[in-house]
Amino acid sequence: MDLKQIEEILRSVKSGEKNIEDGVRILADLPYKDLGYATIDNHREIRNGYPEVIYCEGKTVDQVKGITEYMLTKNENILATRATDEMFEAIKSLAPDAEYNRLGKVITIKRKEQKISESYIAIVCAGTSDLPVVEEAYETAKMLGNKVEKIADVGVAGLHRLVSKIEIIRGAKVIVVVAGMEGALASVIGGLVDKPVIAVPTSVGYGANFGGLAALLAMLNSCASGISVVNIDNGFGAAYNASIINKL
Amino acid sequence: MDLKQIEEILRSVKSGEKNIEDGVRILADLPYKDLGYATIDNHREIRNGYPEVIYCEGKTVDQVKGITEYMLTKNENILATRATDEMFEAIKSLAPDAEYNRLGKVITIKRKEQKISESYIAIVCAGTSDLPVVEEAYETAKMLGNKVEKIADVGVAGLHRLVSKIEIIRGAKVIVVVAGMEGALASVIGGLVDKPVIAVPTSVGYGANFGGLAALLAMLNSCASGISVVNIDNGFGAAYNASIINKL
Amino acid sequence: MDLKQIEEILRSVKSGEKNIEDGVRILADLPYKDLGYATIDNHREIRNGYPEVIYCEGKTVDQVKGITEYMLTKNENILATRATDEMFEAIKSLAPDAEYNRLGKVITIKRKEQKISESYIAIVCAGTSDLPVVEEAYETAKMLGNKVEKIADVGVAGLHRLVSKIEIIRGAKVIVVVAGMEGALASVIGGLVDKPVIAVPTSVGYGANFGGLAALLAMLNSCASGISVVNIDNGFGAAYNASIINKL
Amino acid sequence: MDLKQIEEILRSVKSGEKNIEDGVRILADLPYKDLGYATIDNHREIRNGYPEVIYCEGKTVDQVKGITEYMLTKNENILATRATDEMFEAIKSLAPDAEYNRLGKVITIKRKEQKISESYIAIVCAGTSDLPVVEEAYETAKMLGNKVEKIADVGVAGLHRLVSKIEIIRGAKVIVVVAGMEGALASVIGGLVDKPVIAVPTSVGYGANFGGLAALLAMLNSCASGISVVNIDNGFGAAYNASIINKL
Amino acid sequence: MDLKQIEEILRSVKSGEKNIEDGVRILADLPYKDLGYATIDNHREIRNGYPEVIYCEGKTVDQVKGITEYMLTKNENILATRATDEMFEAIKSLAPDAEYNRLGKVITIKRKEQKISESYIAIVCAGTSDLPVVEEAYETAKMLGNKVEKIADVGVAGLHRLVSKIEIIRGAKVIVVVAGMEGALASVIGGLVDKPVIAVPTSVGYGANFGGLAALLAMLNSCASGISVVNIDNGFGAAYNASIINKL
Amino acid sequence: MDLKQIEEILRSVKSGEKNIEDGVRILADLPYKDLGYATIDNHREIRNGYPEVIYCEGKTVDQVKGITEYMLTKNENILATRATDEMFEAIKSLAPDAEYNRLGKVITIKRKEQKISESYIAIVCAGTSDLPVVEEAYETAKMLGNKVEKIADVGVAGLHRLVSKIEIIRGAKVIVVVAGMEGALASVIGGLVDKPVIAVPTSVGYGANFGGLAALLAMLNSCASGISVVNIDNGFGAAYNASIINKL
Amino acid sequence: MDLKQIEEILRSVKSGEKNIEDGVRILADLPYKDLGYATIDNHREIRNGYPEVIYCEGKTVDQVKGITEYMLTKNENILATRATDEMFEAIKSLAPDAEYNRLGKVITIKRKEQKISESYIAIVCAGTSDLPVVEEAYETAKMLGNKVEKIADVGVAGLHRLVSKIEIIRGAKVIVVVAGMEGALASVIGGLVDKPVIAVPTSVGYGANFGGLAALLAMLNSCASGISVVNIDNGFGAAYNASIINKL
Amino acid sequence: MDLKQIEEILRSVKSGEKNIEDGVRILADLPYKDLGYATIDNHREIRNGYPEVIYCEGKTVDQVKGITEYMLTKNENILATRATDEMFEAIKSLAPDAEYNRLGKVITIKRKEQKISESYIAIVCAGTSDLPVVEEAYETAKMLGNKVEKIADVGVAGLHRLVSKIEIIRGAKVIVVVAGMEGALASVIGGLVDKPVIAVPTSVGYGANFGGLAALLAMLNSCASGISVVNIDNGFGAAYNASIINKL
Repeated sequence: MDLKQIEEILRSVKSGEKNIEDGVRILADLPYKDLGYATIDNHREIRNGYPEVIYCEGKTVDQVKGITEYMLTKNENILATRATDEMFEAIKSLAPDAEYNRLGKVITIKRKEQKISESYIAIVCAGTSDLPVVEEAYETAKMLGNKVEKIADVGVAGLHRLVSKIEIIRGAKVIVVVAGMEGALASVIGGLVDKPVIAVPTSVGYGANFGGLAALLAMLNSCASGISVVNIDNGFGAAYNASIINKL
Repeated sequence: MDLKQIEEILRSVKSGEKNIEDGVRILADLPYKDLGYATIDNHREIRNGYPEVIYCEGKTVDQVKGITEYMLTKNENILATRATDEMFEAIKSLAPDAEYNRLGKVITIKRKEQKISESYIAIVCAGTSDLPVVEEAYETAKMLGNKVEKIADVGVAGLHRLVSKIEIIRGAKVIVVVAGMEGALASVIGGLVDKPVIAVPTSVGYGANFGGLAALLAMLNSCASGISVVNIDNGFGAAYNASIINKL
Repeated sequence: MDLKQIEEILRSVKSGEKNIEDGVRILADLPYKDLGYATIDNHREIRNGYPEVIYCEGKTVDQVKGITEYMLTKNENILATRATDEMFEAIKSLAPDAEYNRLGKVITIKRKEQKISESYIAIVCAGTSDLPVVEEAYETAKMLGNKVEKIADVGVAGLHRLVSKIEIIRGAKVIVVVAGMEGALASVIGGLVDKPVIAVPTSVGYGANFGGLAALLAMLNSCASGISVVNIDNGFGAAYNASIINKL
Repeated sequence: MDLKQIEEILRSVKSGEKNIEDGVRILADLPYKDLGYATIDNHREIRNGYPEVIYCEGKTVDQVKGITEYMLTKNENILATRATDEMFEAIKSLAPDAEYNRLGKVITIKRKEQKISESYIAIVCAGTSDLPVVEEAYETAKMLGNKVEKIADVGVAGLHRLVSKIEIIRGAKVIVVVAGMEGALASVIGGLVDKPVIAVPTSVGYGANFGGLAALLAMLNSCASGISVVNIDNGFGAAYNASIINKL
Repeated sequence: MDLKQIEEILRSVKSGEKNIEDGVRILADLPYKDLGYATIDNHREIRNGYPEVIYCEGKTVDQVKGITEYMLTKNENILATRATDEMFEAIKSLAPDAEYNRLGKVITIKRKEQKISESYIAIVCAGTSDLPVVEEAYETAKMLGNKVEKIADVGVAGLHRLVSKIEIIRGAKVIVVVAGMEGALASVIGGLVDKPVIAVPTSVGYGANFGGLAALLAMLNSCASGISVVNIDNGFGAAYNASIINKL
Repeated sequence: MDLKQIEEILRSVKSGEKNIEDGVRILADLPYKDLGYATIDNHREIRNGYPEVIYCEGKTVDQVKGITEYMLTKNENILATRATDEMFEAIKSLAPDAEYNRLGKVITIKRKEQKISESYIAIVCAGTSDLPVVEEAYETAKMLGNKVEKIADVGVAGLHRLVSKIEIIRGAKVIVVVAGMEGALASVIGGLVDKPVIAVPTSVGYGANFGGLAALLAMLNSCASGISVVNIDNGFGAAYNASIINKL
Repeated sequence: MDLKQIEEILRSVKSGEKNIEDGVRILADLPYKDLGYATIDNHREIRNGYPEVIYCEGKTVDQVKGITEYMLTKNENILATRATDEMFEAIKSLAPDAEYNRLGKVITIKRKEQKISESYIAIVCAGTSDLPVVEEAYETAKMLGNKVEKIADVGVAGLHRLVSKIEIIRGAKVIVVVAGMEGALASVIGGLVDKPVIAVPTSVGYGANFGGLAALLAMLNSCASGISVVNIDNGFGAAYNASIINKL
Repeated sequence: MDLKQIEEILRSVKSGEKNIEDGVRILADLPYKDLGYATIDNHREIRNGYPEVIYCEGKTVDQVKGITEYMLTKNENILATRATDEMFEAIKSLAPDAEYNRLGKVITIKRKEQKISESYIAIVCAGTSDLPVVEEAYETAKMLGNKVEKIADVGVAGLHRLVSKIEIIRGAKVIVVVAGMEGALASVIGGLVDKPVIAVPTSVGYGANFGGLAALLAMLNSCASGISVVNIDNGFGAAYNASIINKL
């Protein structure tokens, strides 16, 4: 809270430079700014080309359609994650230019040009079953204005495949590692690079995998430094996080 | 793997510039380089002023003393985490300039000057019981050459305290949030900033806290974007991660 | 156990005012009264306008219909929770005035006027996905004769929204906080009010949420005082509890 | 945020009624008030006779002594929970009138008279091993200005003992039920009363008790309405919560 | 292993009383007898009127039909648990006298008269949702030749209902208590009787019930003596166990 | 509730045989009797020779001594479980005839002769590390007036040892099986006998044993019929249960 | 890494026997060989008759069809696990000689003759519900060139059945034990043989089985030596492991 | 069961070749042989040089001393695991040639020469904190007559160290991989070799490691084939298993 700013407003009201109505309006905003209103705006709306985000899981098709309709009036880019075929049909009726990444369950609508980062995010995954999470991360990272490289199917049971891709992984500014089963890929990559690694455990597996718990615990306990972890299957969160870092 | 490098060696062997023995020696090393040897060196030794790290938990006093003795011969900075009083006594007998942060259980020995970053890492914690983890993170971040700001005791049950410190938190390039009990601080800060947040759940609490599980799950499930998580009480890992990001 | 009451009966039997058969009948009921029969009656039937409650989960449409039919003969208000569309159709055929809150899966039949409390219960929730639990709590609280204020979508990732509603929350006599994911809203509100807070974790979330476990543990470990917790998704229980407090 | 209030201040500054410094001071406080500063003060300091609270677990004797020393300068009542014998010795050297409930591990210092509530809180427990939690709750409730009735050792395996105490339990305005092992007492009492019941699972038990988890789950799943739950062994939290309700 | 028996055989072979072939046949059976072959026969086939048992879960309709067809050739009573409607149709085509308890998912075929015990098993349950498990236990106990008394809907939230049935419960030789949610009924009954109580936790409940875990843990931790526990929803096992005890 | 009893009292009051005060006194006791007072007495005190039981865990030496002192005045047999050496010293100073089973941590004082059952309880265990639980069960069963046979160290990894003892196991009226690690002994014995088996998982083991959870789950899921389970390490409960069955 | 091999290449380049391009190509492959490329080849392709493996779970019918189409071009044997009926239809349209083990959900295509081992793998299971896992293991072991013996339905509740098959089990070089529920079969067999036992817990069971966790923990805690464990329901993994051992 | 063997005995008894007493003695042993007595003997005693094993955890010093004393009379080699310093002192007083591996907590006494295998077991570990488990496995494998190679500190965070040791690992007949934290080493080695891998999770780690659960789950879910798992910290079991395989 900037006391000088308040003082200045009071001075300009006293001097008649500002009228009282303007003073009220400005001062009424202060607590919101202090509390982070602008920040949240920054997060979601103010920065050029940042998309509106809809998390579709647990919402009805009508709810998703309604939210999209409203957002389209603002002429912003839109990113809808965990979207079903039905939701895509509904959105397409509103925005014929909407695109659907079926594997990643992501709908994107581009209405504004974005400046794409020069540095890139590498999204690496262990097996083909992890691809849905990879695609969610990929579409998210792209819509947030990042250059992205996908490196798929480099699980630790075939180290030579990983080694043949290691230079492109090392070239990234931040690395997203997506892996289910035992999640060992995060540790192996963490030992080969000196960039921040964001690990995404996936629910790929069965039995003692317990819905991704095995990979989650493995990643949290990684013996390699420089690794942090997001929720199971949270491709969006990993990409969002990577995007913040990539744009620092 | 650099094909040109191999070609060159072959040429110089063919031309007699290099003898065969030298060619064998150089080529025999190639896979190691490809596998990240240099990288790991970069991680731990090559960069100017980066410390040697000893994780003392589960080691005897004698083992820690022995490792330190060897490291001192390399004249590098040394960072020993989870160190006991007895270990400090043993190390001090080797290096009288060793310092001990008792709360954080961290021993530091400085033998080389480091360049300190201009941007800073903010380390924020919820309660006074989280301070040991804060101190581990603080000492680690400092030894890795970062400017650091500590903001303690800004738990969500007293939001006004957090708000009064929000500007210094927002000014950081990356934020480490340390919180036990229900770990809500990570979500609240995540909603107020647009910087990467590394959340460290602590084992502070009792009963249904289950040794930090409550905070860990809360942080993994945060409704705020831009948060990633490290292991319970892993102040070192959070700081290491933050340091990589701060130096990008 | 009221000794005077027993004494009086014995006296009136001795005097011949009551015959022995009546004495036996009355005395035979005593233990039941002592054991809480009246209390349970008070809970469910005796107080003016208190509804009969049917918990529909795990019951067949026929069972729910049968129970409703019987209850309608008593001319009481009826509240059926966790009710499906089919159950609503069946009940409507019996009671055309039945109403269905589809989101909250609650059927209500009003046959008696209730006195509405002057003080109100605030039901606050973090995200739109928590609304089904909010609606269950809302309909329950209303049918139990409470004035209710709903405040939706004030999750901690956007504190300014919460702050703009804080006065209406503080005005309540008791507050129900409904939140899934990391459940941090309970702690934040608990730190801003001095009223009893009943926290309802919801099963909203995925991965390491473990069906609401993350929010449940977070709420049980809240660093804010004055918070107690009910079962995951238990909107009915929270509202019932809040109603008892609101009417003290 | 009251726009009229801001307008008035601006008018009085413009008119010269208030000088600019006073205007700055008043306006600078606004956001804090909105954020609950006064509320938190109310919680802890402003209400007459409310004690300062120190949670001693995880603090050193010196830290507890230091905090107490500072608090004594404010001449408030002090309540220290989870305090050891050593902490009591340290505090007694500062305040010879300090008292120690060794079973409940609670230290109390009374420097101000409190108004005691007319309605009472009943604290009921199942077995003698639950008494430490009962005592923590008891001392807390008393220090917060409540009349309290303790009813011990009325576990469900001997219902007749519970029945003989049921009237005193029913007479309370709010009931705290403390039980370990299978925690059934909360359900049984919940079925016999129409007052809010705050259930405290305790860690009493062994084997498949898992440190209180059995009782915690039982209480969260109670078939009786009107029950809410706090953390395992959290006598303080239950009493704090009960106190808020008792004073409504 | 009876040495005398072997000695006798050897003697009678030596004396020519038995020929060598008979000696071989008898001796070859010895280990099987020692290992419990007869016992298992006793368990399942030898005792008069004991039924053949088919556990249908995880079997196909054809498999169940095939097993039944074979069993019918032995002219024994048959008990099929966890049976679906389709399985009943298939069995009925083989045995028109088959009966189906749809709620309990149990098919019974009676081909032999059983002697019914004079003492009885009491099967008590907390709520109507527990009835499927009660019915599985009821049909099992009946088919094993026991007199059975069912006492339904006497949950601990309405103790007066339980008390009104206590004499019939006390009259049993062994008591099966079926309860979901918090499973407190086992403890309450365990405190009121001096007969063996077999507790069956059910999966009735939601949220922190975790599929019956809450009731299971509660029953294992019961403060009342004389209670033992079977698997969640295991009505068959409880009845089988009770039958062994009832027939001692 | 005996209506005839009430009628008789009313008659004798009416006739003047009893005065009103006596009538009140007698009637006031009725509900207690109905609620099981006599039963609980039966459980603990009324039956000839049944011991008083003290569960020492979580009690101080002084508390145990005090309880014992009081119980000795009643001249009953006393059984104290989970007792330490210190407790034994304290009790011995009161009752020089007290005996201590150090392995089972059980103290016994015999002041009354008991009639010993003719049928016996077999207590079987898998390994020598399970002996403390066996001894707790053994002393309990003996003090409750049962003939007992102990069969130790017959784990399933050496089936021949078990087979050599199978006849003595089969001769019992009820069998207590004590096993840690994977708890397979309960299933194997359950398949070899037709008597009720009470399984006691022990906390013997390490790693993925999780304090007895492995054995507990195994026993609850036993493929053999006729097995019920008590809490981990609960030798007392198993013996108490077995005693009720043995005396049917 | 074979230094001689490098030396030879250098010599032949120097001498002009090999030109530089060939030298580069050969040397560029070295690290891959070092890193296990050949090994993995060995695992999957190089050894005579070893099949290509497709893990179908989580793949679409089209994906499985595509992968199979590609593999068929290599004229290798193919093993597809966790395959649905639809997948079999799709594959059959490509390879009319494909066979489907519906119970085990395994598709096999034989295009090359395999040498079958002389020693055999015994696959033993406890109950008929474990057969799907047995069949997956059986088909896998056969396709990997092993002689296999299946021994079904020898659960520990009927030891005599197991004993009658023990010689065929003992004759194997390695034993796969498949068991759900309490998984005791692994321990019992482990005590009867001196061959390596690979235990496969299955998800057969309900309630406190927790999807195979009970059997998994039991097997990990087995009191018999010589047992190792694979994931729940992992018939493929057990057979693969057994095959490696059988071919040593 | 060999019928011919029985026939022969009967014949020789009949003919007088054997007397009846001898016949009884031989026949009495038959069931034991059938049940695996010989096998277990083979396991523990019969094979030349196989040691007697004492698992010391949970035993008193006196018990361990007593068992050792008895075993020494048989003049066999002895292996005592999880032994303390005190136990070593006690054993040394009996057998001055006893040796103690303090790190692995293993005592060995060699009284018979063993034939050492030509093929070797490789025991590989990730970090120095895993060494106690490595040493337990090492001593066990040696005492069972195996040639052993230890490869320490080749965790996946430094792949180049692992690669430099890969040939010695590949040369083994069976590989034991010991790893705590995230246990990724098992997967990486499993992908690089074609030998059976026995994975031992260790309890090394903290926080979300949950006492070795993270590594255990990771290893069970390994994406590499050919891996089986033993209990957390079970170095003995892994070595025992490896020894059986090594000697096939």
